[in-house]
Amino acid sequence: MTDFEFENILKNDIRKVDNSLLSYLPDAKDGQYQVAEAMKYSLINGGKRIRPVLALEFARACGGTRNDCLPLACALEYVHTYSLIHDDLPCMDNDDLRRGKPSCHKQFDEATALLAGDALLTHAFEIISEAELSDDKKVIAVSLLAQNSGVSGMIGGQVIDLLFEQGSPNLKELLTVYKLKTGALISAACLLGCISAGADSSQMAAASKFAYSLGIAFQIQDDILDITGDEKKLGKPVGSDATNSKKTYATIAGLTKAQQDVKKLTDNAISQLDAFEDTEFIKLLALKLVNRDR
Amino acid sequence: MTDFEFENILKNDIRKVDNSLLSYLPDAKDGQYQVAEAMKYSLINGGKRIRPVLALEFARACGGTRNDCLPLACALEYVHTYSLIHDDLPCMDNDDLRRGKPSCHKQFDEATALLAGDALLTHAFEIISEAELSDDKKVIAVSLLAQNSGVSGMIGGQVIDLLFEQGSPNLKELLTVYKLKTGALISAACLLGCISAGADSSQMAAASKFAYSLGIAFQIQDDILDITGDEKKLGKPVGSDATNSKKTYATIAGLTKAQQDVKKLTDNAISQLDAFEDTEFIKLLALKLVNRDR
Repeated sequence: MTDFEFENILKNDIRKVDNSLLSYLPDAKDGQYQVAEAMKYSLINGGKRIRPVLALEFARACGGTRNDCLPLACALEYVHTYSLIHDDLPCMDNDDLRRGKPSCHKQFDEATALLAGDALLTHAFEIISEAELSDDKKVIAVSLLAQNSGVSGMIGGQVIDLLFEQGSPNLKELLTVYKLKTGALISAACLLGCISAGADSSQMAAASKFAYSLGIAFQIQDDILDITGDEKKLGKPVGSDATNSKKTYATIAGLTKAQQDVKKLTDNAISQLDAFEDTEFIKLLALKLVNRDR
Repeated sequence: MTDFEFENILKNDIRKVDNSLLSYLPDAKDGQYQVAEAMKYSLINGGKRIRPVLALEFARACGGTRNDCLPLACALEYVHTYSLIHDDLPCMDNDDLRRGKPSCHKQFDEATALLAGDALLTHAFEIISEAELSDDKKVIAVSLLAQNSGVSGMIGGQVIDLLFEQGSPNLKELLTVYKLKTGALISAACLLGCISAGADSSQMAAASKFAYSLGIAFQIQDDILDITGDEKKLGKPVGSDATNSKKTYATIAGLTKAQQDVKKLTDNAISQLDAFEDTEFIKLLALKLVNRDR
């Protein structure tokens, strides 16, 4: 696959998701308008759409269609978007900016941002329940999404992360946070793609392993870029982890080991792809995500 | 049905719910302990369990069993509990107390309360997806719960309510808030009871009408008690709506019309019960809820 072909598929997938994301928003009447605007504002705030793209492509790699998977892909982006809105709130990370634009509670207000996040989470499950898929697939999708975004998954990672801000986590503890906070929802993405296409359990297991390895590698690469990155390319200052005395995988393990581990995790992720057909795009996507310089 | 028999059934239903609520909590590891504690703290904070009791009793009134409905009943209480936690946060109602005890963010902290709420909402859907019910029932239950607790339901009501705090709503607008903020989740409760028992569409329609009438009557009764109530019985000061210049149904329409409308709505609710079998308990529960003096 050429770089041109890769970019074409990626653009196509992202366009597919972007075109559908807003169509799932609930109708808002007079008084509800502001929270619907806040949901929309955060949904279209130019994310990389990694999770929905992975879902669509795993559906294809399991012999299914992207269209069948589209509602599940959008539900994943709703959950990801809610998590960013709540993460940015003053009681959490207190971030005024999200991708260079005012974060949701800055653009609107805290109450609106809180409720917009709650609503996005709620509607993610509504989207799944109303997808054109068989009931058994929908039930498994609801279960997997809830498990991976709840206390045993993403929320669990956020909770432990908050705790570590006051303490001094070791490498193993940091890996747990990366696994839960980032890996779990990426795992849900790959798994929901599989589910929509009726994948077998060995494919599900491989998809989950791929996702966790990729998610953790992605987070460690984030840490590496905070040391080695180019501020102009990243669009944000480097060295902020060191300035904030924030323990990261790269600061604890050292740059060399961090880079070695990214490579190991990526190799491990890619080796899981043997369980699927036609995975050239997914492989390139994984490599680009972990080898990125921005 | 004697008062003694009524109280026995009610106690039995509440015990059934209380005994199961915590069993659905996800396992928490080291770092996640605090958020799991916060979920538990808020779940067992002595609510009236109106929603789960209605679910169980509508299941029975449709010829089903309370056991089949129990997971759905607990999921409803998870959603209700999350909504109270988020409602109490400083950016919303900023309430330090909930039923005489510190609200979740006071007992723990804001970040923990935010995440505990998010987790309760998430796990409500997980509980449904893992219930021992057929897949088609579970899909309808997820859809109904999401619709009624999202922007078109409970969250929509909270949004409009926030707006009215700055403005001067008329009677029709207030009714919309009561319908969405309280009626929608009570409607979900009655409907989930029906679903678990395989009710037909005419029973579903009657259950929903019952729920909305009851929910609105319940809210108007709240307004009335703020004027006529006995502080000792209520356990909170009366006249707070007037002190805060808060527009309520009773202050806008006047006490007499408010009382008449509670009666009308209650009669309307009870008339819907003809669609079901053996509804003596539900009828008495409705009457007690709207005729309460505390």
